[in-house]
Amino acid sequence: MTAFAVRPIGIVRSELTRRGEAPRQGDEGAPEAWVEVRPEFAGALDGVSAGDELLLFTWLHLADRDVLQVHPRGDRSNPIAGVFATRSPDRPNPIGLHRVQVVRVEGGTRLRVRPLEAVDGTPVIDIKPVLINDEA
Amino acid sequence: MTAFAVRPIGIVRSELTRRGEAPRQGDEGAPEAWVEVRPEFAGALDGVSAGDELLLFTWLHLADRDVLQVHPRGDRSNPIAGVFATRSPDRPNPIGLHRVQVVRVEGGTRLRVRPLEAVDGTPVIDIKPVLINDEA
Repeated sequence: MTAFAVRPIGIVRSELTRRGEAPRQGDEGAPEAWVEVRPEFAGALDGVSAGDELLLFTWLHLADRDVLQVHPRGDRSNPIAGVFATRSPDRPNPIGLHRVQVVRVEGGTRLRVRPLEAVDGTPVIDIKPVLINDEA
Repeated sequence: MTAFAVRPIGIVRSELTRRGEAPRQGDEGAPEAWVEVRPEFAGALDGVSAGDELLLFTWLHLADRDVLQVHPRGDRSNPIAGVFATRSPDRPNPIGLHRVQVVRVEGGTRLRVRPLEAVDGTPVIDIKPVLINDEA
């Protein structure tokens, strides 16, 4: 099978600057952050507004893509597991999934969101609305 | 910003063979299907077992990546919206997100899952366990 080229559609701007600072999940004390969407994709944001619940997909650019097994949550007292059984950022395709709420939209391309555990500079690759099915 | 190369980690094997046949969401009558993980990633499945709730990430290879706005759900009576405000498969990076349950695991690399609305031959790019936070 061939590979596919994922193009960043935006970038995270956050006070979190190092991977070690970032909580493992957004509900573990992550801050508000900005998602800056590239101007050429502004039209794709039509209909996104304050209060919306979104799924942000990021590319965890600091991840190690050669890792197949980890101690879950980085805790060596947890037995080793395959990365597909964990939320480790280290995995063959390091896609991050973040459920956030839109705080406000500025200038048609900037979304203030919360909470977001991704570090500053993390590429954003997709944005989707939350569906009932995601919660079922 | 540069692009990233996503490598398929597996493929969907399904009775659904045409995009027009596929339900828009898994809970809209989608069938069981197989996820065949490539042998080199078998170790990443350690700990995945029957009954698990997973998020499958696919690459919707039949999608149109140049589309920024759509009539939601393909219904022209719905007002046009940006693709980031919809679940349209047509979007700049056509990542599919599917919540499934593992029915069984065979041979260490084949997962029988349900329900899955992706068509036969759809590349799988990541697998993650469902977290409480996804449902919150």
